[in-house]
Amino acid sequence: MLAAAVGSDVKTPSDAGGLFAPNAVAVVGATEREGSIGRAIVENLADFDGTVVPVNPKRESVLGYDCYPDLGAAPDVDLAVVVVPPSIAVDAVRDAGEAGVTNVVVITAGFSETGGEGAERERELAAVAEEYGLNLVGPNSLGVLSTPTGLNATFGPSNALPGNLSFMSQSGAFITAVLDWANDQGIGFKDVVSLGNKAVLDETDFMRQWRDDPDTNVVLGYLEGIEDGREFVDTARDVTQDTPAVVVKSGRTEAGAQAASSHTGTIAGSEAAYEAGFEQAGVVRAENVQELFDFARALDGLPMPDSENVAVVTNAGGPGVMATDAVGDSRLSMASFEEETLDALLDSMPEEANVYNPVDVIGDADLDRFETAIDAVLADDNVGCAVVVSAPTAIIDYEELAGVVADLQNEHGKPVVTCLMGGERTEKAADVLGEAGIPNYFDPARAVSSLDALAVQRAVEAREYEAPREFDVDRERAREILTDAADRGSTRLGVEAMDLLDAYGIPTPEGEVVDDPADARWVANDIEGDVVMKIVSPDILHKSDIGGVKVGVPDEEVADAYEDLVTRAKNYQPDATILGVQVQEMVDTDAGTETILGTNRDPQFGPLLLFGLGGIFVEILEDTSVRVAPVSEREAGEMIDELDSAPLLRGARGRDPADEDAIVESVQRLSQLVTDFPAILELDVNPLLATGDGVQALDVRLTIDPDEL
Amino acid sequence: MLAAAVGSDVKTPSDAGGLFAPNAVAVVGATEREGSIGRAIVENLADFDGTVVPVNPKRESVLGYDCYPDLGAAPDVDLAVVVVPPSIAVDAVRDAGEAGVTNVVVITAGFSETGGEGAERERELAAVAEEYGLNLVGPNSLGVLSTPTGLNATFGPSNALPGNLSFMSQSGAFITAVLDWANDQGIGFKDVVSLGNKAVLDETDFMRQWRDDPDTNVVLGYLEGIEDGREFVDTARDVTQDTPAVVVKSGRTEAGAQAASSHTGTIAGSEAAYEAGFEQAGVVRAENVQELFDFARALDGLPMPDSENVAVVTNAGGPGVMATDAVGDSRLSMASFEEETLDALLDSMPEEANVYNPVDVIGDADLDRFETAIDAVLADDNVGCAVVVSAPTAIIDYEELAGVVADLQNEHGKPVVTCLMGGERTEKAADVLGEAGIPNYFDPARAVSSLDALAVQRAVEAREYEAPREFDVDRERAREILTDAADRGSTRLGVEAMDLLDAYGIPTPEGEVVDDPADARWVANDIEGDVVMKIVSPDILHKSDIGGVKVGVPDEEVADAYEDLVTRAKNYQPDATILGVQVQEMVDTDAGTETILGTNRDPQFGPLLLFGLGGIFVEILEDTSVRVAPVSEREAGEMIDELDSAPLLRGARGRDPADEDAIVESVQRLSQLVTDFPAILELDVNPLLATGDGVQALDVRLTIDPDEL
Repeated sequence: MLAAAVGSDVKTPSDAGGLFAPNAVAVVGATEREGSIGRAIVENLADFDGTVVPVNPKRESVLGYDCYPDLGAAPDVDLAVVVVPPSIAVDAVRDAGEAGVTNVVVITAGFSETGGEGAERERELAAVAEEYGLNLVGPNSLGVLSTPTGLNATFGPSNALPGNLSFMSQSGAFITAVLDWANDQGIGFKDVVSLGNKAVLDETDFMRQWRDDPDTNVVLGYLEGIEDGREFVDTARDVTQDTPAVVVKSGRTEAGAQAASSHTGTIAGSEAAYEAGFEQAGVVRAENVQELFDFARALDGLPMPDSENVAVVTNAGGPGVMATDAVGDSRLSMASFEEETLDALLDSMPEEANVYNPVDVIGDADLDRFETAIDAVLADDNVGCAVVVSAPTAIIDYEELAGVVADLQNEHGKPVVTCLMGGERTEKAADVLGEAGIPNYFDPARAVSSLDALAVQRAVEAREYEAPREFDVDRERAREILTDAADRGSTRLGVEAMDLLDAYGIPTPEGEVVDDPADARWVANDIEGDVVMKIVSPDILHKSDIGGVKVGVPDEEVADAYEDLVTRAKNYQPDATILGVQVQEMVDTDAGTETILGTNRDPQFGPLLLFGLGGIFVEILEDTSVRVAPVSEREAGEMIDELDSAPLLRGARGRDPADEDAIVESVQRLSQLVTDFPAILELDVNPLLATGDGVQALDVRLTIDPDEL
Repeated sequence: MLAAAVGSDVKTPSDAGGLFAPNAVAVVGATEREGSIGRAIVENLADFDGTVVPVNPKRESVLGYDCYPDLGAAPDVDLAVVVVPPSIAVDAVRDAGEAGVTNVVVITAGFSETGGEGAERERELAAVAEEYGLNLVGPNSLGVLSTPTGLNATFGPSNALPGNLSFMSQSGAFITAVLDWANDQGIGFKDVVSLGNKAVLDETDFMRQWRDDPDTNVVLGYLEGIEDGREFVDTARDVTQDTPAVVVKSGRTEAGAQAASSHTGTIAGSEAAYEAGFEQAGVVRAENVQELFDFARALDGLPMPDSENVAVVTNAGGPGVMATDAVGDSRLSMASFEEETLDALLDSMPEEANVYNPVDVIGDADLDRFETAIDAVLADDNVGCAVVVSAPTAIIDYEELAGVVADLQNEHGKPVVTCLMGGERTEKAADVLGEAGIPNYFDPARAVSSLDALAVQRAVEAREYEAPREFDVDRERAREILTDAADRGSTRLGVEAMDLLDAYGIPTPEGEVVDDPADARWVANDIEGDVVMKIVSPDILHKSDIGGVKVGVPDEEVADAYEDLVTRAKNYQPDATILGVQVQEMVDTDAGTETILGTNRDPQFGPLLLFGLGGIFVEILEDTSVRVAPVSEREAGEMIDELDSAPLLRGARGRDPADEDAIVESVQRLSQLVTDFPAILELDVNPLLATGDGVQALDVRLTIDPDEL
């Protein structure tokens, strides 16, 4: 068997390269029947540079190619495309494995997307793939396609134009629609893969594949779900440092998630998790199909800007204002020109022109005036990128203007987008611009949003990857606390787990849980001032309601208070398990801001971290930030930055600014805790009191899964 | 002279109808010089159904038309288009007035947009227009155009296709761009007007004009500012009950507003005012050019839905999910089908199809299956509108599918939009759909957003216009309070103006401002319990800082407290004007929620009302709602509804729900106060304490302009 032509030497199930550059392709289930998928694929392979090998025991030849009864009897192939009925598809894949074919695309449908029997069949398929170490795409896939070798192993109606976008899609139909449309738009692709049910290879594998592919400039994805969120984040973070990735995640909304679930059986996971995961992975998120391709074209064709400052040059005031509004809506800023630029513009423009940004060369501008203005602003060190806007006039020929813009972009190496407005008259100009990688849109907002995508990517590339900090913690003590709880049969823990936070260095008030009155006194003695005492019982959730909390207890009353709390608890619920009483230092909550620091487990992304101000900010205003754990110091810091209520931690309205470093450290320590212990399903520190001197966890609740210990 | 052909009989400066339907058009400044505006306009009038009358003392004829030395010598005309140089433009307009021509379009530039001398010239122009009662468009206008009579009195390069959209634009260049593009897209217009500098006729006049025009289905606007916001709101509110209006307001962002200001000298006014004004006027606001025309086409071509419930029918799962996401992002909801519909679908669809919304007829669907499904969902009473989505397949012919969709929309009278995805293959289908008024987009999100625009319009049309309530108030007392302050030379008032609120029925705590210790005692005696006392002085802004506030004063200490407060104030600032001391009942602010109710004056819209929760909600979270005064009861209620923090007034987190009726009434009473007294520039009731029993204004500050009294 031939080795994969692309990718690393060691074959793993995630080495997807061979799929796109085979020397010989077998079509298992090839046929000549009109309208069949088996025929469509053989037809689509007509332009393939390598060998096409139909496999079908019932035929001698298919569409002029010699046909073989099985893969064992066929010449060496390095990609098998399986289109046989579902009942024999798993066997066909096993045959491929036996014959040493490592790259397999299963087109056949009737697997997990149909539930029941199909799901079982998919498990068998995955097992066979694992046994033989197969790079398997599908099942229920439209196929794969790669333009450099003319490989079109899909049953779609269109082939792709050559280009440098590589595209993966969880919807095969969407690929057929996109190719048909893209051909019309002159948009080309390097590789295209229909992921199907993702029994083996998934989005993360193709991310990894395209990172190493010099012919892929931009990765595009249409995804309805992600198989392993954490792995995706780790992989994509690395990819997006060099290769932009633009993804539409479908099923964003509740209605959409339901629809996606009935479409591919995808469990969507939470939208907050996807948002956090894509952000951490540096993926440029597109809200819809238009953005997906607008962003991809800009990222493919334009140089990266060296700042976010935009110059607008226009011959029409109104559209210039629209472009400026669009800049105001984006991450970009309007550039302030250097004095030289202003002087140059003042010298060369008529009196009625506006030389400040947006530069209005006014309606009677000819090509020269436009060129002078664009050249001047692109030469300005304060300008990172530019938008050229023109309304049709009798003086300006769009094709000539397009040529000038393309030359100037090339000369200055700064990205330019255009908005040469009009109908048919823009077509030739758009071609000229397109060849220079410059998108032209009627709507100034769309042109600016392309530049905005570059700004996002620029910020991603500027990030330094920072590994999560490893704090010196008492992991063994934490394990003991969790194991003790599990041994007691407790899956929900309260203040008795404060020590868990302590073991991971998250500050807690002085105090202890004790189980007799004498110990309570000892603990209280060690604490300066009066104490707070709370009954500790997994069976009593609302302690205050039953008088299970005493505030401001002086030392001499501690023993009596202990007895009283236990009596009240027993009166309330005679069979309650009582673990003891917590004796804790009094904390003045008015001295700081109550925040909430929590975690829960997402089916796709694993532990998520949540931070926000407590009370109404979380519950009513939903002002929280989320990240996938583990987080780096920068990511933990961003969790504060992105809160609307952040100013309240930063001294707004005469408050004491909170110690942000202490918050950021606690976020990271919790991140380490939940990463170390998958048994922690949910954990809320509420409140985490943030003062100018640090933080203190005043209460905690968690849920554990003993089976994960 | 001929009367205007369209519009009411009584000519007022706002009767714009004659502009679009003249019998004879004079071009004052007509010429044959190549590249001149005077020639371009005569050329553009070639297809005009009426008479074209060039006016130019230097010529006998222009492009084959007889030319006249002046309007007096010319045959009767009912529209004069002025293109002479700015120095003689005002005289030309006067000549038109003298000759009895009431409709004038001033193309000539060099007026207020150039500042200084030009601004003075524009004032003269407006004065002449007023003298002769002219309907004057411009100056600095591209012209006007109306397709039914073939009138193209613009100097733009393109004419318009006939249609039912009427379009006003503050940018002439944008009109040239739009016409060029629209011709290519097959989008037609009824009337088009380039507003220019709006010396006389403005957006409100054309709103009014098109309300009465049976051939205008949708009003479109590109505006950089509005001349008289309140008048626009009142007029547009009436128009939009029958005729949808879609507007792009440019200069939305700070950068954009600056650009607009240097472009047309427009003072943008506040974005919050525009947002409120458009909302109250029922104007559908488009964020950008794409939305402007997407919304206009949908509103022009589609029937109105009778609910906001959408059915999606697709042959492709992924794009169906995208459409569903777009519904989730919009005001629309996914429809739940009736049982009959589900039964009909189950009977007719293959097993693998999804009969729940989104209906997936799956990839092998033929025309019949699509038709059955679309018919079934449109017949469902729970369905108000539908999106038909298709990826290209070998089985479906888009043109046939388009025909079926058009027929079914017609049959059921419910709006349908389509997303027949692909490239060239969609073109003929798009034509078929276009003829039925159905837009087709590649992006499901764009298709759904068109339906969303219908939902907005539906809500606007469903509103009952409600006049602002007139409360029985003590207007004379209010006037007296304001006049007294003005007489004292005060322009900033504090608690001494609490009576102003009282005069308009906004509840205030019991109490009075007194100017001697004995009176203070009398007032305190009448008040149950201890009192709060505050020094009242226009010169002392921060009373608390100088010990100018005493809380919890018992009756017997009131006289001493009075003396003490005055002494402290005099010590602090010997020359301070001291109006006295306020003696007020103690109010427990913990018993309610502190809100803020305020007003200020916008240069375009007049008094704006603002409501929100006090403190951090206004200052940090900027969670406020704004309306243009006067407001109706519904509008006042919406001001609470749209706050993110509204749940805090509604019993969230165990609070007592506030008396919302009392808040709504106070908003309306303040609305009446600021409408009655233009002298009130700013007024803040902060806090307005909202409890379960009502509201109380605890403090007030205002600024007045004595000249407006």
